Amino acid sequence: MAKNLTTRSEDYSKWYNELVIKADMAENSGVRGCMVIKPYGFAIWERMQAELDRMFKETGHQNAYFPLFIPKSYFSKEASHVDGFAKECAVVTHYRLKNAEDGSGIVVDPEAKLEEELIVRPTSETIIWDTYRKWVQSYRDLPILVNQWANVVRWEMRTRLFLRTTEFLWQEGHTAHATREEAIAEAEQMMHVYADFVENYMAVPVIKGVKTESERFAGALETYCIEALMQDGKALQAGTSHFLGQNFAKAFDVKFTTKEGKQDYVWATSWGVSTRLMGALIMTHSDDNGLVLPPNLAPDQVVIVPIYKSEEELAAASEVARSLITDLRAKGIRVKFDDRDTHKPGWKFNEYELKGVPVRIAIGPKDVANGTVEIARRDTLSKELIKKEEAVEKIAGLMDEIQKNLYSKAFGFRKEHTTAVSTYDEFKEVLETKGGFIAAHWDGTTETEDRVKNETKATIRCIPLDDDNEPGKCMVTGKSSARKVLFAKAY
Amino acid sequence: MAKNLTTRSEDYSKWYNELVIKADMAENSGVRGCMVIKPYGFAIWERMQAELDRMFKETGHQNAYFPLFIPKSYFSKEASHVDGFAKECAVVTHYRLKNAEDGSGIVVDPEAKLEEELIVRPTSETIIWDTYRKWVQSYRDLPILVNQWANVVRWEMRTRLFLRTTEFLWQEGHTAHATREEAIAEAEQMMHVYADFVENYMAVPVIKGVKTESERFAGALETYCIEALMQDGKALQAGTSHFLGQNFAKAFDVKFTTKEGKQDYVWATSWGVSTRLMGALIMTHSDDNGLVLPPNLAPDQVVIVPIYKSEEELAAASEVARSLITDLRAKGIRVKFDDRDTHKPGWKFNEYELKGVPVRIAIGPKDVANGTVEIARRDTLSKELIKKEEAVEKIAGLMDEIQKNLYSKAFGFRKEHTTAVSTYDEFKEVLETKGGFIAAHWDGTTETEDRVKNETKATIRCIPLDDDNEPGKCMVTGKSSARKVLFAKAY
Repeated sequence: MAKNLTTRSEDYSKWYNELVIKADMAENSGVRGCMVIKPYGFAIWERMQAELDRMFKETGHQNAYFPLFIPKSYFSKEASHVDGFAKECAVVTHYRLKNAEDGSGIVVDPEAKLEEELIVRPTSETIIWDTYRKWVQSYRDLPILVNQWANVVRWEMRTRLFLRTTEFLWQEGHTAHATREEAIAEAEQMMHVYADFVENYMAVPVIKGVKTESERFAGALETYCIEALMQDGKALQAGTSHFLGQNFAKAFDVKFTTKEGKQDYVWATSWGVSTRLMGALIMTHSDDNGLVLPPNLAPDQVVIVPIYKSEEELAAASEVARSLITDLRAKGIRVKFDDRDTHKPGWKFNEYELKGVPVRIAIGPKDVANGTVEIARRDTLSKELIKKEEAVEKIAGLMDEIQKNLYSKAFGFRKEHTTAVSTYDEFKEVLETKGGFIAAHWDGTTETEDRVKNETKATIRCIPLDDDNEPGKCMVTGKSSARKVLFAKAY
Repeated sequence: MAKNLTTRSEDYSKWYNELVIKADMAENSGVRGCMVIKPYGFAIWERMQAELDRMFKETGHQNAYFPLFIPKSYFSKEASHVDGFAKECAVVTHYRLKNAEDGSGIVVDPEAKLEEELIVRPTSETIIWDTYRKWVQSYRDLPILVNQWANVVRWEMRTRLFLRTTEFLWQEGHTAHATREEAIAEAEQMMHVYADFVENYMAVPVIKGVKTESERFAGALETYCIEALMQDGKALQAGTSHFLGQNFAKAFDVKFTTKEGKQDYVWATSWGVSTRLMGALIMTHSDDNGLVLPPNLAPDQVVIVPIYKSEEELAAASEVARSLITDLRAKGIRVKFDDRDTHKPGWKFNEYELKGVPVRIAIGPKDVANGTVEIARRDTLSKELIKKEEAVEKIAGLMDEIQKNLYSKAFGFRKEHTTAVSTYDEFKEVLETKGGFIAAHWDGTTETEDRVKNETKATIRCIPLDDDNEPGKCMVTGKSSARKVLFAKAY
């Protein structure tokens, strides 16, 4: 029955890796750094996609699809962009294999060499802005509000399932606007959409903010972000939304005629979240018994396990279960009935605990006799016997209650692990002993930021967009600072 | 107002290419052979995906995701498979770019050469069966019923939007079974699921059949297919489902312990449909005025265009429209209201005709005065004035009627363009004068099949799975034939 899961306190990183594999979320493939997302993991990702896609459409966006490959020359057009991605690009150089002449097997055909190499997209700004040039002539063609769901490749040296993989799945929104203000409003809107999703579906509280210059996306004038805190006190960037100014329009010559009849370059944004969110979801809520899923994203919200010795007992328990299932489904609750006779109830309990199903119902002979069912919550691990007539209402209420409880637990953890400090010594001490977010004054220079990073491994996660704008002195240099910023070690 | 669309009779191929672009479905990208699927085209594809995905899940399948890249050594493990795909593979050989030492720009870093080349997946049997080896030990682990939605790359020399592109989107199901019979049943089931979708959603009639040996998927023992007929008399393979036997299990050493405790190789199927279906949809129904979409897949099923000169007239028409929209949406009908003042009604009529919206409603001052609306059907191009009180019922009925009409029109066309012949001369004449499907006896040899192909360009589309099993003599060799097979020139 033992899950043999390393505990978080023993080794958080190991716990995470084991959990992802044991809960059937994902596994490493035979291709370096590329993961296989298994059906259970993918079912969660599909729910995330569906909600995000709905939110994008409600804010006026449409989906489209752009090529996987980017000609090297496109890629090189925006200078800071290519600098940011050149070191991690998978490059296609040939388009044919053949049998080796010496009979040694299949080899790349040297005669099928591409004239220009193709980059497997690490992100699609360049190929998309090359396309937008054809779509935009006049202000009447703007805005373009387009999103794509796609796979992207960044050749990472050190990879971890979901958190950092060579290939990952994501969505990337790419919008084009007539004015600077409209583009900024779009970039801000998408940060809010992301925060809404992550907080209300994933039950993960986030800090909204902007990145410092050195942490910005390659090619952006401003990067808005949402930052979450994991249980080991490390921060995780959960989504970013970039105001790109006219950088890509200039690189790809995308001009439009304004209402006033002038020519101007188009203003751009891009924004994305990825399968990395799966990592954030897992690390925020799960415990030493396995995955804990918020009801809003759980593929199965409720699982019913019959407990029986005889066929008659199974039949009686199944009858109660079927009536419950009908009523729960009528309320839109996703229920699984596991009456497999190949596994014992204890094995099943363990399995669904490991897989984070929010509510487990057990129905045994005693329950049938007494008109009760046993309800177990995954989040609190508490059990309760209740009358079967009350079960549907109770469970419907639990969906909401568990969702809220997970959020408030994570919110409480973050609050407890957010520390304001005044001095660099205090900063270092908190970082080493407690971790989490550390709010500190910073003089606004990349130099100081780099120094802190080199000395402590903490980075500025964001300059929060809250109202806490009290000025002060930089903890490192003593120079004046407009407001505290948030530091943390990060994934 | 003219659409400047080449007519089908002038040049069918040109008509198709122009239509895809003018109706905002897709366009060529800057990357050879790769298309951009534009928002309108993608909205149709999304509807296709949603219905197919529902059907897959209803038949017990789950989605998962496997790597984009396949190590060359995996790819080479199944001999006929690699033979089938080696000539059209995009190959990743390097993983980094750098600044050229001579300052000439960005170049591939020769030091970042991969030890083993990676193939961009043209299909995923090899990487998936390498994974299944880890998933299967016992008969209890079977069946595996997995699908993935993915992009694939086949380096095609001659490409056409949707019909044949270097990169395309598709779904690929890959299932693993304990017995031969179960795998065959699965492959057949998926052919039926595809036929159900293509006939009932796309309104495209199909012939179900099996491929001849030479037309089979590389690595399959049997390829089930559905074949559709386009308006130019050419056939289009709309979907395939393969019984793979134990070929991939043997190549990747995927064995399991049977109920009886023996070791056996696992039985496999794979099945897929792609964005090629978009081409079939367009070519089956559309006319010289543009796209014609079946209501079941149209992103907008109804468009309402107000006709007005004054603000008062617009307000009056809008009031009628809004009430209609509420009632239509309550019936689950997708309605768009186009009250843009940047375009004239005539321009809009033209636009929605080009884009194939099934029903157009116009509301002008006279309609407001008389309590009528004008309803125009895209499929028949007929118009009708009806009382506004009757509009909702009428339109709801039209959704069904148009869907059926498109199917029966296409069915009639196919019937008219399916000819049974007895002699090879007759065959050649029908092929040249009338085209379409030609039913003829064939002696079952690849030799004869190749001869017909070389001499006429017609191929055997399938050996139909219908009851028409009358034996006869091969039209070419006079040898005995168990039944007629279907020939056609094909896309």
